[in-house]
Amino acid sequence: MKALYYDKKIKYSNNYKMPVVGPNESLLKILISSICNTDKEILKGYRPDFKGVMGHEAVGEVIESNDRGLIGRRVVGEINENCGECIYCKSGRPSHCSFRKVTGISGRDGCFAEYMTIRTDLLHLVPKEVPSEIAIFTEPLAAALEIPDQVHIKPSTSVVVIGDGRLAFMIAQVISLTGADLTILGRHDEKLKMFAPFAKTTKSTDETFEIVIDATGSPSGLLTGQKLVRKKGTIIIKSTYSGNLEINMSDFVVNEITILGSRCGPFQPALKLLEKNLIRFPEIELYDLKDYEQAFKSQAFKVGFK
Amino acid sequence: MKALYYDKKIKYSNNYKMPVVGPNESLLKILISSICNTDKEILKGYRPDFKGVMGHEAVGEVIESNDRGLIGRRVVGEINENCGECIYCKSGRPSHCSFRKVTGISGRDGCFAEYMTIRTDLLHLVPKEVPSEIAIFTEPLAAALEIPDQVHIKPSTSVVVIGDGRLAFMIAQVISLTGADLTILGRHDEKLKMFAPFAKTTKSTDETFEIVIDATGSPSGLLTGQKLVRKKGTIIIKSTYSGNLEINMSDFVVNEITILGSRCGPFQPALKLLEKNLIRFPEIELYDLKDYEQAFKSQAFKVGFK
Repeated sequence: MKALYYDKKIKYSNNYKMPVVGPNESLLKILISSICNTDKEILKGYRPDFKGVMGHEAVGEVIESNDRGLIGRRVVGEINENCGECIYCKSGRPSHCSFRKVTGISGRDGCFAEYMTIRTDLLHLVPKEVPSEIAIFTEPLAAALEIPDQVHIKPSTSVVVIGDGRLAFMIAQVISLTGADLTILGRHDEKLKMFAPFAKTTKSTDETFEIVIDATGSPSGLLTGQKLVRKKGTIIIKSTYSGNLEINMSDFVVNEITILGSRCGPFQPALKLLEKNLIRFPEIELYDLKDYEQAFKSQAFKVGFK
Repeated sequence: MKALYYDKKIKYSNNYKMPVVGPNESLLKILISSICNTDKEILKGYRPDFKGVMGHEAVGEVIESNDRGLIGRRVVGEINENCGECIYCKSGRPSHCSFRKVTGISGRDGCFAEYMTIRTDLLHLVPKEVPSEIAIFTEPLAAALEIPDQVHIKPSTSVVVIGDGRLAFMIAQVISLTGADLTILGRHDEKLKMFAPFAKTTKSTDETFEIVIDATGSPSGLLTGQKLVRKKGTIIIKSTYSGNLEINMSDFVVNEITILGSRCGPFQPALKLLEKNLIRFPEIELYDLKDYEQAFKSQAFKVGFK
């Protein structure tokens, strides 16, 4: 089959070996897949040990499955394959399983291919009303929903999102649904325009906020957050990147700031918001897998493969 | 009067000018004062702009006051003099007042002297049952109580305190009162022995914990905490120090760790625990102010002036 895989660098093959369906697994025909910032970080060396098909955002059709009822249905899949036995699995933290494999990131082939296999219990049905070009946003939207799953965002709270990219756009829409006073701090006039329908936008760091969400994807996010956050406030970090950061922690102690890391989130609420048409996106730009170089270079809001 | 003051370095004078009592203020005769780690950090350059009498832990007797009922009574004083008008004062965060002065640390003379003045509303009466040599621990005990004021420490939570010094000792006793499973990670057998009556002690970093409390007073605390904390767990930082720290934040994001700075705490609960004799301390070692060099060098559990 056709596949984009990583082996020290990204490679394309039109003769990659077909995955073999294991017990309790399903075989998916990939209808659409999309590039996430993590994929770009992998190309920069974020996961040097990973070897295999890249990609973790996909909508697929079930071709084979231990659950016969799923065959022919459209699905999206959670990306953390957990063991079910460790302290994290047994205490309600399966996405933090000590022995987890992560689709297209660690120990498990991903979705930048014609087919992939996945453990059946990780699948969620896509509602009929949701086209695949929208359902493809389930995983990143779930990651945005992890924030209100971790922190109580009160309608009366002041929130700023740092960043004007895709992740920020998703987070901002989720936060705007709470009714909270929401500001987007960005650098690009063109991108900031997209946020105007549901948030205030700014390029200045003069104001302070109770909750700061770093969606910059770069180490600078935390340092900007340090300027923006009120004392006793919270900085939520969504950015993962390779490399270290030099920081004065005493400032966070004296001001009693909470810093909170935030990663993958819940799929079901994401699918519900998509079904209700409460989240909007610009159209996804789709490429053939073999045109991956062009796809990875594109500056479009969302880029994927079909 | 006699006083120990800071002006680029620590100095002693037996002819320091007597403080003048302002409106809404009280004049205290200092019965006993004590050295905190922050005082030692000031000597290392933590607060280069501070100029004045050092010290913020004291028990005093009220000599003059706008509140006549206080005269002759023993008191302890909160260290943050807030403005009452800013966003922090008006939203229940007076110790984070934007314009605050901090006794012996910033903009306000401290207690390493024969007398000091303090705004009367910052004073708390010391219960009769509590000797001054115990009441002197009110401020550091309040700082320890800030932890359960910020974070819900459940009786079923596993907690580790990193550090085997004074701050750790105070925090450990407060946490042990919750019934939580408590471990102390230290380096010094002699010091760890003190914790044995109410906590497990260890020198190894093999185990993991839901809540990690850094009471090391050094940048290494957060790095050790990173090893000890469970995924989705919390690291509470009590350490303030000069200088920066180099850290990989992505690790905290992927593991969804909460990092929480913690500083000054509530005086009333501290006085209640002391009145009920629920917290124990080794005896304080007391010096004359003029023997400050000896006092600052002492390795005793708690060192003060009388």
